[in-house]
Amino acid sequence: MRQSQLFGKTLREDPKDEVAANARLLERGGFIYKSMAGVYEYLPLGLRVLERVNGIIREEMNKIGGQEILLSALQPKERWEKSGRWASLGEEVMYQFRDHSGREIGLASTHEEVVAEIAVRSIRSYKDLPLFVYQIQTKFRDEPRAKSGLLRGREFLMKDMYSFHRDTDDLNKFYAKADKAYRAIFKRCGLAVYMTEASGGTFTKEFTHEYQAPSPAGEDLIFFCENCDYAQNREIATMKEGDPCPKCGGRIATTKSIEVGNIFRLGAKYADAAGLSYTDEKGAKKPVIMGCYGIGPGRVMGTIVETYNDAHGIVWPAGVAPFRAHLIVIGNQASPKHPDKSGATGQARIKNQAEKLYNRLLKSGVDVLYDDRDDKTAGEKFADADLIGIPYRIVISERTLAKKGIELKARAESSSRIMSEAVLIKKLLRKTA
Amino acid sequence: MRQSQLFGKTLREDPKDEVAANARLLERGGFIYKSMAGVYEYLPLGLRVLERVNGIIREEMNKIGGQEILLSALQPKERWEKSGRWASLGEEVMYQFRDHSGREIGLASTHEEVVAEIAVRSIRSYKDLPLFVYQIQTKFRDEPRAKSGLLRGREFLMKDMYSFHRDTDDLNKFYAKADKAYRAIFKRCGLAVYMTEASGGTFTKEFTHEYQAPSPAGEDLIFFCENCDYAQNREIATMKEGDPCPKCGGRIATTKSIEVGNIFRLGAKYADAAGLSYTDEKGAKKPVIMGCYGIGPGRVMGTIVETYNDAHGIVWPAGVAPFRAHLIVIGNQASPKHPDKSGATGQARIKNQAEKLYNRLLKSGVDVLYDDRDDKTAGEKFADADLIGIPYRIVISERTLAKKGIELKARAESSSRIMSEAVLIKKLLRKTA
Repeated sequence: MRQSQLFGKTLREDPKDEVAANARLLERGGFIYKSMAGVYEYLPLGLRVLERVNGIIREEMNKIGGQEILLSALQPKERWEKSGRWASLGEEVMYQFRDHSGREIGLASTHEEVVAEIAVRSIRSYKDLPLFVYQIQTKFRDEPRAKSGLLRGREFLMKDMYSFHRDTDDLNKFYAKADKAYRAIFKRCGLAVYMTEASGGTFTKEFTHEYQAPSPAGEDLIFFCENCDYAQNREIATMKEGDPCPKCGGRIATTKSIEVGNIFRLGAKYADAAGLSYTDEKGAKKPVIMGCYGIGPGRVMGTIVETYNDAHGIVWPAGVAPFRAHLIVIGNQASPKHPDKSGATGQARIKNQAEKLYNRLLKSGVDVLYDDRDDKTAGEKFADADLIGIPYRIVISERTLAKKGIELKARAESSSRIMSEAVLIKKLLRKTA
Repeated sequence: MRQSQLFGKTLREDPKDEVAANARLLERGGFIYKSMAGVYEYLPLGLRVLERVNGIIREEMNKIGGQEILLSALQPKERWEKSGRWASLGEEVMYQFRDHSGREIGLASTHEEVVAEIAVRSIRSYKDLPLFVYQIQTKFRDEPRAKSGLLRGREFLMKDMYSFHRDTDDLNKFYAKADKAYRAIFKRCGLAVYMTEASGGTFTKEFTHEYQAPSPAGEDLIFFCENCDYAQNREIATMKEGDPCPKCGGRIATTKSIEVGNIFRLGAKYADAAGLSYTDEKGAKKPVIMGCYGIGPGRVMGTIVETYNDAHGIVWPAGVAPFRAHLIVIGNQASPKHPDKSGATGQARIKNQAEKLYNRLLKSGVDVLYDDRDDKTAGEKFADADLIGIPYRIVISERTLAKKGIELKARAESSSRIMSEAVLIKKLLRKTA
């Protein structure tokens, strides 16, 4: 992609109304645009990162047998009255209104009710179980405090998986698998997380589990063992800082953190409300046991930015970066202040080599953003590259031309190296950063 | 994918409350689930088709320089007051309501206002033009008549592209390119369309263009030339059936049709409302000229079903089919009514060959749905295959085993052929149907 044509420009200054680092950096870098409090538009750079996160989630969900579906936001009141949540969610966070005909409608903030209703058509016998479905879909929540950029939105993408089981034992088996998948997802996104015991909110009276990423930007507080990683959410915590861990005796510490995912045992509540049951081997009718498993891809993206940034901008982990490399051409424009020794010929030569390299990188399968802008100084280009935070910066300039090489610098490192094109491409194609 | 594990079962009977063929067949086939009037859930089979359509659209949009973005549904009233559409759309089809704090919110049925607002940050000079962005995103419309399945929804996916230009000449150049891209998209989806002159609705006072697919299920009526394809929508028609074509003198005919896409010249209306302008080469401030280009992927999917079906079910065109092939194993279960000559050994042998072929097809890159269900008769399996409408049906049975081959039948044809595995795979891997 040529940066001269990119929709979304970098801003010189932080947006005035944003406090959270993720919102400031993502908006300044041209990744997102604030539409209203808690509602952001994804520009091309931002959508690329979001789709990387979604891609990782899809892969891990498919690996544990998840089938992708797509559910809708508009919800009839009647469905939610069966589960008793029309009133409870309506008071809190569910947008509810009447259509032109006067019918009451809600915007889904979660999908247990409808997925259980649909499953009635698929699940009749024990042979139809277990079953795992998931979607990556837009949720709506009327959040009173939407001030944390992508961390707490009024409209946000959510991956929600639902599992259906013949009994609690089978649910528990899958719960452990889902835990593994979740750990893999966060690891691939560059996030270290604690699996934390938590309360179930409106979902369940049992303990649930949250995946908490330690961060000073977090609104949550967790207590965790420095030795064995056992952790509790503040709301249900029975331990405090300095206590011995109830599991291993290690020292308990505390940290602010961001909830990036959660997994819930739902029992038969939503299945019962939807009339979902199955017939076992002996012909007896049994309740279907459900689990649900959520991750907010946008919130994950925001948490990555909170975790990976420095004074100059974002430092994307390789797995979620919008591009693999950022190719910058310096000295492609005549400047009266800094006249180029070889003049117009030199400019053409530099530009020419940059164009060639750009095409060669694309052909080799290296995902590259090419800063071909001819109205920006070297300083402006370097500052933008640091702000955008693509893992590798490639520079073509008079200096690199004189050295018959190409300059490569990792965003996370301070020193650059000159190397041949062949070595450069090999390095960029390596899977690991 | 193993059909025994597929979420979404086929129904024996048509759903009672559906009139449109697309709704009946897609719901019976387990592609979609009706959540409420005009609101459908996509089950795994349905989402696969939808994503095929989306994939074709993305490819063609990227080819003409489109950059993908993702805009949000929640809209502040203030933005739409600037363009004057808060009142006009609110009376008709826009869901509008108050959040818990009393703020007025709308659900976007289109995105001109916000995309022009964002573009203010990207477009300053003539050098920033032209620019093309698009999204595939969920729209909401409070439709009074939502009775046509995927053809007219209250919540539906929409591909909307927006183009930004320095003048009408440049817009017209791109308009022609977009027309070509649209024709390519519909062709790849198997739809023959007329590019039809139409009125601009709330968008513009100029003529716009619709892409109309002739179909008895259509709610529109078009007049078209049998010779040169010139066409007009009923609302603006100056010709009637039997008239000579004003372009070429050919005969004008008429047909019911489904609007599957449209392209609009917007002029400067939305740019002006958002304060979007650019500076030209001489430093003069000029209005930005916009165009917009819509396609409903779900409506395209519904139109394909209206176009490609027979008495037994859907007949998917290859480019959008949920799978390339449907592998059916017959005689994998002991049946007291039809005892297998070789008994349990024979069943195991058949099952074994089917499993082997399934794995080989997957390895070869053939996208295959495998009907491994052991509680269905051959008749039930064949009926389901016809209903679901995957382009190629492969059968493994005692008969094919005896002939040392595999049976292949195209869904659109009536006769089958026995062939070797190598020939079968080669045929299935061919790009064209």
